[in-house]
Amino acid sequence: MPTMMAQEIAQQPEALARTFDRLLPRRDELRALAAGRRHVLFIARGTSDNAAVYGRYLVEIHAGLGASLAAPSLATHYTVERDLTDTLVVAVSQSGATTEIVDAQRWAADHGARTVAITNEPASPLADTAHLALVTAAGREVAVPATKSHTTQLAAIAVIADALGPDRDRLEPQLRAVPDAVHAILADRKGVDEAVSELARADAILVSGRGLAFATALEVSLKLEETCLEPVRGLSYADLRHGPIAVVDHDVTTVLIAAREGPMLPGMRELADDLRDLGARTVAIGGDAGFRSIAGIAVDGPDLPERVAPIGLVVPGQLVVEAFARSRGLDPDAPRSLSKVTETDRDSADSAG
Amino acid sequence: MPTMMAQEIAQQPEALARTFDRLLPRRDELRALAAGRRHVLFIARGTSDNAAVYGRYLVEIHAGLGASLAAPSLATHYTVERDLTDTLVVAVSQSGATTEIVDAQRWAADHGARTVAITNEPASPLADTAHLALVTAAGREVAVPATKSHTTQLAAIAVIADALGPDRDRLEPQLRAVPDAVHAILADRKGVDEAVSELARADAILVSGRGLAFATALEVSLKLEETCLEPVRGLSYADLRHGPIAVVDHDVTTVLIAAREGPMLPGMRELADDLRDLGARTVAIGGDAGFRSIAGIAVDGPDLPERVAPIGLVVPGQLVVEAFARSRGLDPDAPRSLSKVTETDRDSADSAG
Repeated sequence: MPTMMAQEIAQQPEALARTFDRLLPRRDELRALAAGRRHVLFIARGTSDNAAVYGRYLVEIHAGLGASLAAPSLATHYTVERDLTDTLVVAVSQSGATTEIVDAQRWAADHGARTVAITNEPASPLADTAHLALVTAAGREVAVPATKSHTTQLAAIAVIADALGPDRDRLEPQLRAVPDAVHAILADRKGVDEAVSELARADAILVSGRGLAFATALEVSLKLEETCLEPVRGLSYADLRHGPIAVVDHDVTTVLIAAREGPMLPGMRELADDLRDLGARTVAIGGDAGFRSIAGIAVDGPDLPERVAPIGLVVPGQLVVEAFARSRGLDPDAPRSLSKVTETDRDSADSAG
Repeated sequence: MPTMMAQEIAQQPEALARTFDRLLPRRDELRALAAGRRHVLFIARGTSDNAAVYGRYLVEIHAGLGASLAAPSLATHYTVERDLTDTLVVAVSQSGATTEIVDAQRWAADHGARTVAITNEPASPLADTAHLALVTAAGREVAVPATKSHTTQLAAIAVIADALGPDRDRLEPQLRAVPDAVHAILADRKGVDEAVSELARADAILVSGRGLAFATALEVSLKLEETCLEPVRGLSYADLRHGPIAVVDHDVTTVLIAAREGPMLPGMRELADDLRDLGARTVAIGGDAGFRSIAGIAVDGPDLPERVAPIGLVVPGQLVVEAFARSRGLDPDAPRSLSKVTETDRDSADSAG
């Protein structure tokens, strides 16, 4: 009997296709809501925050708007007085019930923002209080580690970027190719078992990616940590170069994640080279043939262009995490100390529903 | 003979006083340059990026402008076309010579931004090409780990926030108190040796802070890692709650950092409580008496209000890092694999000067 996490990983091609069918027709509404807005501010925590990192890059690259991640405490604890009349706020929460995110979205609207909620729960406080709610079609998610709820968040974010981007350069054709590309990853599982064996030998694990794939590195890192109970670090390429590379040696395994193409690939190849020179062991996820050949172990990524690749690039990471947890005798469906809805502040847990 | 790092830590009260004397009179120029700008975008890497995190919170809280951190790769690799005519860009680099930061500042000006450089080198490409250069008065820094160059960056950032903030609420009196508060920390070293003994026993180290003190947590984490060659994680309070708390147990030592007051202190006390319940060992830096009493070990922080506290709060962290490195037989002045000027991209190293 596969774990619930494994079953939910396998449901992603359908969940993604349903989500695109549901949300792509809402681009006109999104354009109307965002008219005249020059900035996009994402509000999220945890897995949803990793989805927002993808959104932050994609909105700047594809739509040319300023994009950034909110620090929710600026709204909830410092109650900053800030003019958001030039800003579209995108609040992301699987449950739509995390008090801090709901409060921060309300703060944003009170300060002039237009608000879009991305959630998997249509009858949630976040959906109810947004100007526009994009409800993902993941279906009910039972395992604690978010998988299909995360990739459908990525899909919803890409729909927003497509709506805000230029008419002459639509993401839609690339997005429609995502479900099949994810299906191919699930069918092959190429390199997954080898990656698990490699991680089992590591004393310490780093995960790195750059640009659009940085979001994937953060999410794979978080999943490894919360599901496999290993301290793992997700680092941008630059942050790795600017410090932690000092601790890299033969006891460290580095997981490097890249799309099959794009302006980040040459630098990621160099990083793989340099890590090999330092004696570190490397697992590649995605990339092109050159990138994969430098790494000791290579896990196939999705055959997708860079702008939409992160939606599928996290899937081989999910497969590795699920198998690694089982290999350690852990239950990937229910890691210790974590619950499905995490409240940042203990005193607000009662109101989370 | 004290290490160079120890000597440079000790020079901070004077370096900070000189920097305030030099930069506070430039607030009128800053106000003129920023007139009509509604957003502040920081461009930085590594230690300077941690300083920018303080700036991001302080500008929003004190000046009510939108503030965020740039992803330099959006400028240097994706060459995003973005309208920055509503934005003041603040580029931060000790050397003023990091190619990526200089290139990103030029990209910003080309797209309509007004630019301020914060650097310790008056004759640097970053200072030369900015609309306004704030040159910190750290003096020459020899040890590889940045100490006085970092705290004077924080001072320069606070001067910008003061310039952009309301006339009725000047930060200047609080800023003028910083050098003496730092001097008191250096004279007492209270709790430093006990913290070093505790860290020496840890299998893994987490560092956490929230709000304005999150910047301090990131910087102490980076310094511990690059100087003591320990894998260390700097996490926001929320990110710790949303995942990595799953890996906290009795082998993990958590360093919690807080100002003596402010809206974050109750939550940090709860976090210290919860970590104790999980069996984790805790080192407190700063906070009030209640916060310190929950932790197993307490290192005194500066006696400063929350908004300027981060300028001094990193200093007890520096003392712990320097002593911890020596206790491990390492040379804190020259950690392996790191140089004073780090280039993010290997192929640009030649042009860094």
